[in-house]
Amino acid sequence: MKCRKCSAKAVINMRQHKLALCKSHYLDWIPEQTQRFIDKYKMFTHDDNILVAVSGGKDSLALWDILVRLGYRTAGLYIGLGIDGGISYSDESQRLAKKFAQSCNLHLISVGFPEEYGSTIPEIAKLTMRGRGKPCSVCGMSRRHIMNRVAREEEFDVLVTGHNLDDEAAVLFGNTINWQGGYLLRQQPVLEANHPGLVKKAKPLCRFYEREMAAYTILRDIEYVYDECPYSVGAKSIYYKELLNKLETDRPGAKLNFYLSFLRAKKEGLFSSSTDQKPMELNTCNNCGQPTSVPGECAFCRMLVSIAD
Amino acid sequence: MKCRKCSAKAVINMRQHKLALCKSHYLDWIPEQTQRFIDKYKMFTHDDNILVAVSGGKDSLALWDILVRLGYRTAGLYIGLGIDGGISYSDESQRLAKKFAQSCNLHLISVGFPEEYGSTIPEIAKLTMRGRGKPCSVCGMSRRHIMNRVAREEEFDVLVTGHNLDDEAAVLFGNTINWQGGYLLRQQPVLEANHPGLVKKAKPLCRFYEREMAAYTILRDIEYVYDECPYSVGAKSIYYKELLNKLETDRPGAKLNFYLSFLRAKKEGLFSSSTDQKPMELNTCNNCGQPTSVPGECAFCRMLVSIAD
Repeated sequence: MKCRKCSAKAVINMRQHKLALCKSHYLDWIPEQTQRFIDKYKMFTHDDNILVAVSGGKDSLALWDILVRLGYRTAGLYIGLGIDGGISYSDESQRLAKKFAQSCNLHLISVGFPEEYGSTIPEIAKLTMRGRGKPCSVCGMSRRHIMNRVAREEEFDVLVTGHNLDDEAAVLFGNTINWQGGYLLRQQPVLEANHPGLVKKAKPLCRFYEREMAAYTILRDIEYVYDECPYSVGAKSIYYKELLNKLETDRPGAKLNFYLSFLRAKKEGLFSSSTDQKPMELNTCNNCGQPTSVPGECAFCRMLVSIAD
Repeated sequence: MKCRKCSAKAVINMRQHKLALCKSHYLDWIPEQTQRFIDKYKMFTHDDNILVAVSGGKDSLALWDILVRLGYRTAGLYIGLGIDGGISYSDESQRLAKKFAQSCNLHLISVGFPEEYGSTIPEIAKLTMRGRGKPCSVCGMSRRHIMNRVAREEEFDVLVTGHNLDDEAAVLFGNTINWQGGYLLRQQPVLEANHPGLVKKAKPLCRFYEREMAAYTILRDIEYVYDECPYSVGAKSIYYKELLNKLETDRPGAKLNFYLSFLRAKKEGLFSSSTDQKPMELNTCNNCGQPTSVPGECAFCRMLVSIAD
């Protein structure tokens, strides 16, 4: 198969776009498209200070690389969770995040959860039995808390994450299969800071397939953690991704169409926002000042108190 | 496995309800549940005259049987479409619909499409090239037209169809995967007659799994057309059913939850009805007086004119 732009040998064929590209044109096309999405969804501008949540995986490193190539002012944030895999999953993730930052001469902020809070995420999950002892819910909550805290403390304008189309489509599928109105209303490429303690969030890669990000990272020679988090085995999101992959194989473009038609329907006013289904009102945590759905202390602060007892 | 109610041998285990029942209790349970759905969704009462759309398949015959057992005033409507299968699919369907009506001493209205309109449905599809010559869209439109016409002419209060949960979930899945707002707003167990030319429609079996209806029909010794319509091969609805069956196998109850959580979210006001997405306004066909989305003649009348030319 040949590149649509120059007839050189194509390295990737994107069936949903009927577009095959060579290495050189593909590595141009990805940042061009990203810029288009950033503008379309009004994510941020070249005047903004952007904090990139970096896990050491392909998506977040690709995102950082793309934003740097597009000339944005960025710093990275790595959060060490204390998760062991075959070799230590967290150690390896941190090593690769640091390696990338150093090679590009970029500023990486590191927060070590065990160092700051005295326990690893899996230890806290066992102590509190949140999520029945499985660390995923503690991990998600803690990362959201820390990302928001660092973004505010360091006065970043926007926090960006490397969620790709496969991630977004899987979340959307899970919310749709159970018709969770609140989550459907909240799922967006951009979440505005609708509370003084909340930073604006954006997902510039939300329209790229996971395989496109993998190809980009490999072609850019960026070393990344290939393994999934050891705790993700059996996760619903992975199950939904498999189901959507089946749909995509049978009908190329189905995944993208699912996500984009959702955004379109939402924009055209499919959902009511003046009903029982409207997003929850946010309160301010008495302890840390971050937003919380319940009055008093936020779930993160309550968790820290419970493990200190 | 034993019956939950009497400890006799169970004939069916409904995992989503954690309920196993023997033949006798199952055959009581189905009409009880149907009555519950009829009341819950305000489908009709014992004062209403009910027209049952009967295809000769398991669902429509089961529906008619259940309504008769529940003491409702019913007549059946069979529409002959002129579709050939191994043996003639339409002939066999009609034979079994008639056989059931006679055995229960019920009134069956028969409309033969080829006899009334001069051509079979597949012939019309080829002539008009609607649906690229595949008869499904012509068939759906023609059946809807005739069902509504007969229901109005014979002064029935409500038209009922045998759509089961698998049908409804597949339609919902198709509308969701493409976020077709108009269709999502319209999908209901009951469609009120919101136009003078339109009869009220209801789907009393919409919460029963297809296998539950198959079991009911077999246990009631009702002979039905086992084959699917020969034109349904490769239909999207069948593809979606397979996908939902996979989901159901992995997570019993997923299909029911998908449909019921949709109805619940809708009732709680998830969808906006005052926007671009609102259901289309209906006009009256100049020729037949039935409702039509475009002013002038309805699609059915236009189709008849086009084949008469």
